[in-house]
This record gives sequence, C-alpha cells and structure tokens, in this order.
Amino acid sequence: MIAPRFYSMTFSQSEEKIVIKVGIVGGTGYTGVELLRLLLGHPEVSLRVITSRGEAGTAVADLFPNLRGHLDLKFTNPDIDALADCDVVFFATPHGVAQSQVPELLARGVRVIDLSADFRIRDIAIWEKWYGQPHGCPEQVAEAVYGLPEINREAIRTARLIACPGCYPTSVELGFLPLLEKGLVDLNDLIASAASGASGAGRQAKVDNLLTEISDSFKAYGVAGHRHLPEIEQALGDIAGKPVQLTFVPHLLPIVRGIHSTLFATLLDTSVDLQALYEERFASEPFVDVMPPGSLPQTRSVRGSNMCRISVFRPQGRDKVVVLVAEDNLVKGASGQGIQNMNIMFGLPESTGLNSPALLP
Amino acid sequence: MIAPRFYSMTFSQSEEKIVIKVGIVGGTGYTGVELLRLLLGHPEVSLRVITSRGEAGTAVADLFPNLRGHLDLKFTNPDIDALADCDVVFFATPHGVAQSQVPELLARGVRVIDLSADFRIRDIAIWEKWYGQPHGCPEQVAEAVYGLPEINREAIRTARLIACPGCYPTSVELGFLPLLEKGLVDLNDLIASAASGASGAGRQAKVDNLLTEISDSFKAYGVAGHRHLPEIEQALGDIAGKPVQLTFVPHLLPIVRGIHSTLFATLLDTSVDLQALYEERFASEPFVDVMPPGSLPQTRSVRGSNMCRISVFRPQGRDKVVVLVAEDNLVKGASGQGIQNMNIMFGLPESTGLNSPALLP
Amino acid sequence: MIAPRFYSMTFSQSEEKIVIKVGIVGGTGYTGVELLRLLLGHPEVSLRVITSRGEAGTAVADLFPNLRGHLDLKFTNPDIDALADCDVVFFATPHGVAQSQVPELLARGVRVIDLSADFRIRDIAIWEKWYGQPHGCPEQVAEAVYGLPEINREAIRTARLIACPGCYPTSVELGFLPLLEKGLVDLNDLIASAASGASGAGRQAKVDNLLTEISDSFKAYGVAGHRHLPEIEQALGDIAGKPVQLTFVPHLLPIVRGIHSTLFATLLDTSVDLQALYEERFASEPFVDVMPPGSLPQTRSVRGSNMCRISVFRPQGRDKVVVLVAEDNLVKGASGQGIQNMNIMFGLPESTGLNSPALLP
Amino acid sequence: MIAPRFYSMTFSQSEEKIVIKVGIVGGTGYTGVELLRLLLGHPEVSLRVITSRGEAGTAVADLFPNLRGHLDLKFTNPDIDALADCDVVFFATPHGVAQSQVPELLARGVRVIDLSADFRIRDIAIWEKWYGQPHGCPEQVAEAVYGLPEINREAIRTARLIACPGCYPTSVELGFLPLLEKGLVDLNDLIASAASGASGAGRQAKVDNLLTEISDSFKAYGVAGHRHLPEIEQALGDIAGKPVQLTFVPHLLPIVRGIHSTLFATLLDTSVDLQALYEERFASEPFVDVMPPGSLPQTRSVRGSNMCRISVFRPQGRDKVVVLVAEDNLVKGASGQGIQNMNIMFGLPESTGLNSPALLP
Repeated sequence: MIAPRFYSMTFSQSEEKIVIKVGIVGGTGYTGVELLRLLLGHPEVSLRVITSRGEAGTAVADLFPNLRGHLDLKFTNPDIDALADCDVVFFATPHGVAQSQVPELLARGVRVIDLSADFRIRDIAIWEKWYGQPHGCPEQVAEAVYGLPEINREAIRTARLIACPGCYPTSVELGFLPLLEKGLVDLNDLIASAASGASGAGRQAKVDNLLTEISDSFKAYGVAGHRHLPEIEQALGDIAGKPVQLTFVPHLLPIVRGIHSTLFATLLDTSVDLQALYEERFASEPFVDVMPPGSLPQTRSVRGSNMCRISVFRPQGRDKVVVLVAEDNLVKGASGQGIQNMNIMFGLPESTGLNSPALLP
Repeated sequence: MIAPRFYSMTFSQSEEKIVIKVGIVGGTGYTGVELLRLLLGHPEVSLRVITSRGEAGTAVADLFPNLRGHLDLKFTNPDIDALADCDVVFFATPHGVAQSQVPELLARGVRVIDLSADFRIRDIAIWEKWYGQPHGCPEQVAEAVYGLPEINREAIRTARLIACPGCYPTSVELGFLPLLEKGLVDLNDLIASAASGASGAGRQAKVDNLLTEISDSFKAYGVAGHRHLPEIEQALGDIAGKPVQLTFVPHLLPIVRGIHSTLFATLLDTSVDLQALYEERFASEPFVDVMPPGSLPQTRSVRGSNMCRISVFRPQGRDKVVVLVAEDNLVKGASGQGIQNMNIMFGLPESTGLNSPALLP
Repeated sequence: MIAPRFYSMTFSQSEEKIVIKVGIVGGTGYTGVELLRLLLGHPEVSLRVITSRGEAGTAVADLFPNLRGHLDLKFTNPDIDALADCDVVFFATPHGVAQSQVPELLARGVRVIDLSADFRIRDIAIWEKWYGQPHGCPEQVAEAVYGLPEINREAIRTARLIACPGCYPTSVELGFLPLLEKGLVDLNDLIASAASGASGAGRQAKVDNLLTEISDSFKAYGVAGHRHLPEIEQALGDIAGKPVQLTFVPHLLPIVRGIHSTLFATLLDTSVDLQALYEERFASEPFVDVMPPGSLPQTRSVRGSNMCRISVFRPQGRDKVVVLVAEDNLVKGASGQGIQNMNIMFGLPESTGLNSPALLP
Repeated sequence: MIAPRFYSMTFSQSEEKIVIKVGIVGGTGYTGVELLRLLLGHPEVSLRVITSRGEAGTAVADLFPNLRGHLDLKFTNPDIDALADCDVVFFATPHGVAQSQVPELLARGVRVIDLSADFRIRDIAIWEKWYGQPHGCPEQVAEAVYGLPEINREAIRTARLIACPGCYPTSVELGFLPLLEKGLVDLNDLIASAASGASGAGRQAKVDNLLTEISDSFKAYGVAGHRHLPEIEQALGDIAGKPVQLTFVPHLLPIVRGIHSTLFATLLDTSVDLQALYEERFASEPFVDVMPPGSLPQTRSVRGSNMCRISVFRPQGRDKVVVLVAEDNLVKGASGQGIQNMNIMFGLPESTGLNSPALLP
C-alpha cells in the first residue's frame, strides 16, 4: 500500500509554504460551490480538479457567477488519475457515489473527506435500511473517522477517510455534547426541534423546493423518520457511552442558509451550572461560541461562517434544559467542517481559511 | 344594568337580516386591519366606528391601501358614546387598554371581544407579574369567557366579555387538547417548540423587527419566559383538570403570517389510535382540520384563513407523540377567532364571513 | 352550429339564480389553483370538472392543501364530453394546449376563456416566431376577443372565445392606456421596466426557480426578447391606432405574487393634467384604482385581489411621464381577469366573486 | 498645516508591512458593520477606534453578533484626539455629521473617507435644497474628490478627503460610463430604473422598514425626487462633458443587500459594438465585470463582494441600449468602495482585503 500523502506533506513543511493539492468530486451542488468559495480564500490550497458528469466542459464560473474572476477551472468528467494526483479529495456528492470511488483513491495514497452520508453509520444494516440501497463499500466504513473535530480531533489527524457529519447532526451533537459527556440528562428523553434553510435540500429541480412553494411558509418534514436520526443517535450514543433515544423533528425554513436546533432534555441533577459547563467544555474550540446567558443565536450571525453559536437555558428553573444552536448548514454543517478536517489532517492551524466573520446583515 | 345587546339581536332575528353594529378600538395594528378585511366580507355586520388616538382623522384606506375602494371610514378618537351605540366592540389594542374601557361598555349593554391579553389570565397576581403592571379591572376578569370555541362554545354564546386567546396559545391548546382531555400523556413533560411570522410582533417601529434584521434568518426568543406561557398552562390545566408543566420555546420566522407549533408529549399508553382520537375530537369543528396520517401542515395552507390544520405522529413507534399545528396568527390566532366568537355570541352560523380558502401560493 | 350557451343563460335569468357550469382544463398550475380559490367564492358558479393528465384521480385538495374542506373535486383526464356539458371552460394550460381543443368546444356551444397565449396575437407568423411552434388553430384566432375589459368590454359580452391578456401585458397596457388613447406621448419611445413574483414562472420543477436560486436576489431576464413584447406592442398599437415601439425589460422578484410595472414615456405636450386624465379615464372601472398624487402602489396592496393600482408622475416637471402599476399577476394578471371576463359574458355584475380586499399584511 | 499622513505611509513602505491606523465615526449602522467585517480581513489595517454616541461603552460584537470572537473593540464617544491619531477616518454617518468634524481632522493630518452625502455635490445650493439644511462646511467641498476609482483614480491617490459615491449613483454611473465617455447616446433621454435591498434604508426604527411592511412586496419610491438624482446627474455630466437629464426611479426590494439598475438610453449611432466597448473600457478595472453577451447579472452574484457586474443589450436591434448593473449596495455601493479608495490612497494594491468571492447561494 502506498503511504498516505500526509507523509509527504510533513516533509514539505520544511519549505516555505505547504500547498495541498485538492480535488472535488461533484462540484455542481451547494456544498460544492461552498467548498470552492472557501478554498479560494485558503492560503495553503491548490485546487486541481473538480468533476461533474453533467457539466463536464462548463466553466465553474459559468454555473456559479459569484466565482467569475476568481476561478478558471472547468468541470471535468471524473478521472481517477487526475484525482489520484491530489493530496486530498472531497466528495460533495449525493450518497452512494463516494462508496464506489473511495477504495481506489485510498489505495493510491489520497486522503478522502466525504461530505455525503456514505461512511457515517457504522452499522451497515442500519445504513442500508435508511438509505434504501445496498452499501457499496462496507469494508471501508470501519476505518472512516467521523469528522466532528470537537470529539474526534486526534483520530482526524491521521485519518485517511473522513465521514463528515451531516448538517443537522453537527448542530444537535454539539448542542447535547456537554450534557451527555457528563451524564447529566435522561438519555431516553432527548428532543431536537430543528429548522434548516432550503439549501439543505440541495440544488435539485423539484417542485417542492420552488420559491413559490416554500417561501413565506414554514412546515415540519421527515417527522416519521429522517435519515439524520440514526446518525445522530449513533454519535450521541458514542458521546454518552450508552444508547440514547432522540425525537427529531426537522423543519423547512424559507431562507437559503442556516440551521437552528432547539434541544430539550430532562436534567437528572438541577444543581449543575449549565453556563459554566458549556463555556468550559468549548473554551478551546475555535468554532463553537458559547454565548452569554440569555443570548439568542440567530442563523444570520453565522451566515457564511464556520462558527456554531450556542446558548443554554433552564426555563422557569424547572428540570428541562433548552439548548439553542445556530450554524450555517453549508459551512460548519458541510463544507467548512470538511476544510476544518483537512486543516487538522494536514497539520495546519485549524482555522486556516475559515476566519471570515459571518455576513450580516 | 342595561340588558346586554344580544337580547335585541334575538329579537331582530324575526327580520330578514341581522345586522350587527360593530366598533373597533385600536385599528391601526395588524389585528385591526385583519378585523377590517374579514368584517368587510361578513354579510351581517355594519362597521360603525374604528378608533385610534394616533391616527384620528386619517382615512383607514390611507393607512391600509388594500382597503382602498372597500371602506370609507376614518379613524376617530375614542368616544365612549359612539362605541356604546355598537352591539359589539372589538379591542385590537396592546394589553392594558381594554381594562380601562370595558366596564363602562358592558354597563351600557355592549358586548366586548378583547383580542388583547387583559382578561385571559384568571389569577390577577400572575397577570401582573408577567405583564409588569397593576391590573386595571380585576373585578371583570372572572366574568370573562376564554374565547376558544373548541372548548368553551356554550359559555361564549351568552358571554358579555370574551378574552380571545393569544396566537401561540390557540395553536398549542388545540394541538394538545385531545391528549389532555383523555389523560393520555405525562402532564409534567409537555413541550411546545413554536414559530411565528413577524406580524405577531405587531406594527411597531423597532429595529428588531426590520426586514434587514430578521429576514433570511431564524432565532428563538422568549426562552427564559414568554407571556403566553402562563396563559397556555392555565388553559391546558383547565382541559386536563389538573396542573401541567409546559416548556415553551417560541421562534421568529422571516415571514409575515403564520404560526407553526411542534408539540411533544410522552404517552402514558401507547396503544391509543392517535389519528382516530384527533379525527373524532374535531369531527364537528368547522375550523380544525385533522389531516391524513403523514401529512405536514404548512403555514401557507392557512394564510388568510381561520382554519387550523393538525397532524399527529408517533415517530419510530416510541412513546413520544408529536403534534404539528399550523394556523394564521392574525386569523385563527386573533381576528378570525374573534369573529368566530362574535358569530357564536349573536346566533349566526359559526363560519359566517370566515369561509374563504387560504391564499396559496 | 349549436347556439352558444349564453343564450340559454339569458333564458335562465328568469329563474332566481344563474348558475354557470364551469370547467377548467389544466388545473395543477398556479393559475389553476387561483381560479379554484376565486370560483369557490363566486355565488353563481358550479364547478363541474377540472382536468389534468398528470394528476387524474388525485383530489384537488391533496395537491393544494388550502382547498381542504372547500372542494371535493378530483382531477380527471381531459374528456371532451364532460367539458362540453359546461357553459364555459377555462384553459389554465401552457401555450399550445388550448389550440387543439377549442374548436370542438366552440362547436358544441361552450364558451372558452383561454388564460394561455394561444389566441392573443393576431398575426400567426409572429405568434409562431415567438412561441417556436406552428399554430394549431389559426382559423379561430381572428374570432378571439382580447379579454382586457377596460378596452374591449362590449366585444367580450358576446364573445365565444376570450384570449385573456398576459400578466405583464395587463399592467403595461392599463398603465399606458390613457396616454395612448389621447395621443400624448412619443410612440417610438415607450419603456416598461417591470418586475414579477416567481409564480409567473409557473409550478414547474426547474433549478432556476428554486428558492435557493432566486430568494434574496434580483435580476432582469428576457431582455433580448420576451414573449409578452409582441402581445403588448399589438395591444398598445390598437389603443394608439398606429404602431408603437416598446422597450420591455422584465425582472424576477423574490416574492410569490405581484407584478409592478414602471413605465416611461416622452410627453408631446407637457401641459396636460395627468392626474385628471387618469382619474377620468378609469373613473367607472371597477378594477383600476388611480391613486392620489404622489402615491406609490405596492404589490402587497393587491395581493389576492383583482385590483390594479396606478400612480402617475412627471418627475422634476420635465417631459418624461412615469406611470407605476401594481397588480397581482395571478388575479388581474390571469385568473381574476378571466372571471371578470366570465362575469361580463354571462351578464353578471362585473365584480361578482371578485370583491375581496387584498391580503395585507 | 501638518503634512497629510500619506507621506509617513510612503516612508513606512521600507518596513516589512504597512499598517494603516483606521478610525470609524458612526459604526452602528449597516455601512459601519460592513466596514468592520471587511477591515477585519484587510491585512494592512489596524482598527483603532469606532465611535457612537448612542452605544458608547457597548462592545461592537454585542450589537453585531457576527463579529463575536473577531473584534474586541467597544464603541466610544466621539473623541477628536483619538480620531486624530488615526491615518484615515471613515464616516459611516447620516448626512450632516461629517461636515462638522472633517475640517479639524484634515487640519491634524488625518485623511478622511466620507461614506455619507456631505461632500458629494459641488453646488452648495443644490446640496442644501435636496438635503433640506444649510451645509456646515462649504469650503471643503471643492477639495473633496468623488471616490469613484473608475473615473477618479489619480485624484484619489493624493486626496485628503474622499466623498464616496452613493449606492445608486455607483451603479448608474458605472453603467452609463462607456456610453457617455464616447458621446454615443442622447444626453437628454437617460433613464434609470433601479432597485435596492432594504439595507439601503439603514438600521433605523421605522414602521416603513419592518419585515411585515416590505417583505413579499415591491414598490417604487422617491419618484418625484430622490437625493441621489442631483449626485448622479453631476457625475454623468462630468463624464459626458456636458449636462445630462436623467429620469431616476428607485424601487425597494424585499431583500437585505443588493442594487440592480436597469438603464435605458437612446443610441445616436447604432453601429457601435456595445459589448466590445464595455469590455475594453473596464478591461483593467478590478471591480467591474463585463459579463458575456446575453448574461443577466443577479444581485446574489455580488452579495458581500466589491464586484459590480454589467451586461449590455440592444433589444430587437432597435436604437435603445439597455444596461444591467448589479452591485452590493453595502460593498461597492458604500463600505467596500471606501476601502478601495483607502487602498489607492495608501499605495496598496487596489483589491487588498476585497478579494473574497460573493456568498452564493
């Protein structure tokens, strides 16, 4: 087996500047264009290839006019040799695609950051049930590291394959994290009422996602069962050290970007100082902001940024804790977190290229 | 004491057509213009007077251009004699206003429908704590009927004073109603994660309500304590026959109209057929629509309409019940419900003037 | 040839109540659901049939949840006999459909109101150039009456076939009407800068119409040539009595409903009292509201209503006149205007079923 | 008189890194927070002071939560000594404020970039007519350089006082620039139909700017006369070398950011290659993007970016030219352009700190 590329990267650190050669598979969706936007501002990255079967030959900037003048690349048909020449390849594809290409890339020494759901769930049967198809690469699932730096930073450093968390899972897991680590709440009574901007549904031609169908309106969806439920329950179980039961209700917001999760749990011990607990747990995290008591995180306060903002409440002094979490689903919930993983994997400061404040107003 | 006006109305039913003389106090806010819009389509109503200290002399249609060509009325300064000449007076005022005028109107035989919070809470001390001022009319509070027709229809018929439910309370109470009436859920573990359009904040010049501050964003608010909490807990306690504890988190939607409440409760008995329970409970209700299993109520499906749409779920077959409720906060959550009360009070078919389908798209 | 149905309607006027039997072809788009919403409030209409190839068998209320509880009809496959049993059939279809069905319906005595573009343009060659296909029914084009009541009321009364104006054309034509009738402006220098809500693009699954693509943004489109240009130039030419040249730039608004047209023309005579001109011309029009001097029509002031609001300006006292026009593209721009035509055709008061004020806020 | 600070800056270029000491007067509005967002990413700037009478003592990040973790500064009361210690001071204030403070700052060697309207109009009488107050500093108006780099780059380099163009003027002037420079159009027949996001109205508590008043709607405003009209006519006259007449109609978009101007002019010579004209004129401009023929600039394609995108059309081959211009009103229309001016003034590469692609979607 060829040594993974990060050895050569370590070697190149003696030079003045690391340059990570990056490839992207599936760059025509919203996580793809967001990867591009963020990577263009990353000082240590060289974008080498971006693939799309449907748009091969089209200039990226023709599809995404915000990139005009910033990027000369064209979409190309997937070409394993071109990808294998990269140090790291991001998959910004629907589920089912990464499965078929990851093994060869790993075998050729490329590190992979998969933004899709292909490697997030360890139990293959559960994956196959929720995604409704056979898993094409079960042998690699065990190797994949769940790319939530706040719990897996050390494993990420040396990982060859990162399964980047889903957008909802990132916010729900970060929000419950301090409570579950300390065993402070009833694990069978976790509730997440979350809401996402429409970019979470991707850039697909569906009547349900037309402005005329979802603007000036609000609804829940996936109440009977959403694919992020098993992912979140697995991660929360890992954190808690035992199984959890979550009731998860996602909602569709008539906005482009942003996830807001409102979490409810029953405290086993109401004497804990929740504000201090959260502040201490995340004190050294570059992308988790525990806000002052009484604060109300707004999704716009993280628009375009990798920051996740959290507030914690105990309304009326009762035994319910309420945690509010805001993130940008395309950044901390997808592409930004992917780059955060990349920075860790390649020994860069974790926030390289991710320092811009959110766009407000 | 003068006999309340409804006797004369009964008398007039021998005539070909009832015409209810209506006055509105405080018509410059959103519940005021919504009352006007709906009453203009009501075949049995004659709008007599609409008051506003700030806009006295202004034509109503100059403030609300949708009414141009439909209404010739001008705002007038509050004048007790003009109001006393009406059969019914609506208060579409901030809390604290109705208190000072209701006693005289009642004494002069006028029936009152108060859309504000002044008479909703029976415990004066609780009202004064949450609204931060002394109650100006505590002696009338006991007489007031809480105007939720689905639980108080008979009392509404003969009421002189209606305390119209708040917008959030209407949706939360209707959503929990069948469960609490039957004692099916843990009363200490009720959760409501609700979201409202910005019209719920009224037509007030505040930076927080600017389009630039709340559009393309989402946030919770009032988590530490919202004034609708004691109202909802009182009503749910009345329904259940014993005290309840609710965790209530409202959110602000970047839309104009609509409330969506996502309710969570823990079932004491998971064998109950929830769909049948809801369908039977609301079978004869003109303004509660229990949707088919798996349906997802959208706020746009009730935009401008007095309908409240409900779906009920038991995700993963666990012991949590999830109820989804959509209403228009300005209609079923305020002015439409006020008119529904008026129809009941004056012996009209309950849906008179409230039959229009929602505006979709 | 069977006598057209309006004779029988005249006959039935001796009865207490006219009931017009209505059919709709193509009811799954936004003009279709808007027709349904408006016709449900029309006291003289009986909805008999609504067709859709794609949704045959589906309850209309399943597709359009605002209609739940208001309408029991199901979509059916197009059936000429069922349609022929109606007094009037609306086509709410893409262009090209009405052409193939209109001749037989007319032959069987049914009157037709076509909301599509099939019969709007008299010059077949021009129609074929702009719509990119052969016209399937050129012989009926000459008979069709252009359904803008403000200029064609008398012809509409006895018409068998109405070509309902497009949404942009309605606003541009009404806005220029008084100026062109009086010959007050340079006919070779007309400009319309118009903007439409996204419902104008229909209920079609296209990436370009996703909320994520058009919300929080604004752009022009169709600058090089929009299909409404030849229609508008034809109508303006008819009004002026000679050919006109219009520069027409439509824009896409990130809202659901509403068209706003800003019109520019060069006055040949600056002494004319423009306000008086407009007020007099439209004084007896039920659905054109000339607003007071200095007013600014908002699209929300006509949301859901058949009203068209107009203001006229002469900025800086120069020789340019600026006319502002607001309408709801789905109502006065399509379905409402269709019903206005129907009312005229069947001898009803013109505003029957079209009296509701706009939904504001 | 003290030598202006740029001499010292030139001197400091021998050092490894220029650091420009920056002050901001009036940092609580949207141009203020946008300046902060952009300056935080500027490698050569040290933010020293940000003043606000109303918010003195408040942490900037408490008012603008997107800046949490990025900026420790607090608002301070205006203090001339603190400001005089800066190399450059930006005024992000309403008109009328800069007038009173600029003379002393200039006298103390500070360079000033005024984002307000105070120094834009050379004719004091015209300024006083449109802004409805006496001008407080007429003697400095002649010195002020109009900060549109595309026409005034050389003068900006050595300017002590920059009058940064208004948001609408930037887009209208750049759009007409190539046509007027070459004398290709009728100067008495210029039309601009422009539309701005609501952030253009500032962060002020007014009912007119509530989400509930302007969302899901569209309207023109300022038709009878907008303060940007005399500014634009002055600049266009400068470019053309003779007076021009512009009809200017601004509109309010229900979005946060973005200006789109649709410009109309009558060609004197229709043989000119408009596409080539525009491409050549702006070939070396870092922040003007002439798009390919047929392109339609979207405001979202410049959201958060200093880029201005332009397309040019000659519809139907007639004699009207249509120019489409998209910019972010807070960036190229205000704060970004201010920084572009600063870069020129201090000898930095013009795009320093302004290189980020727009946020899309």
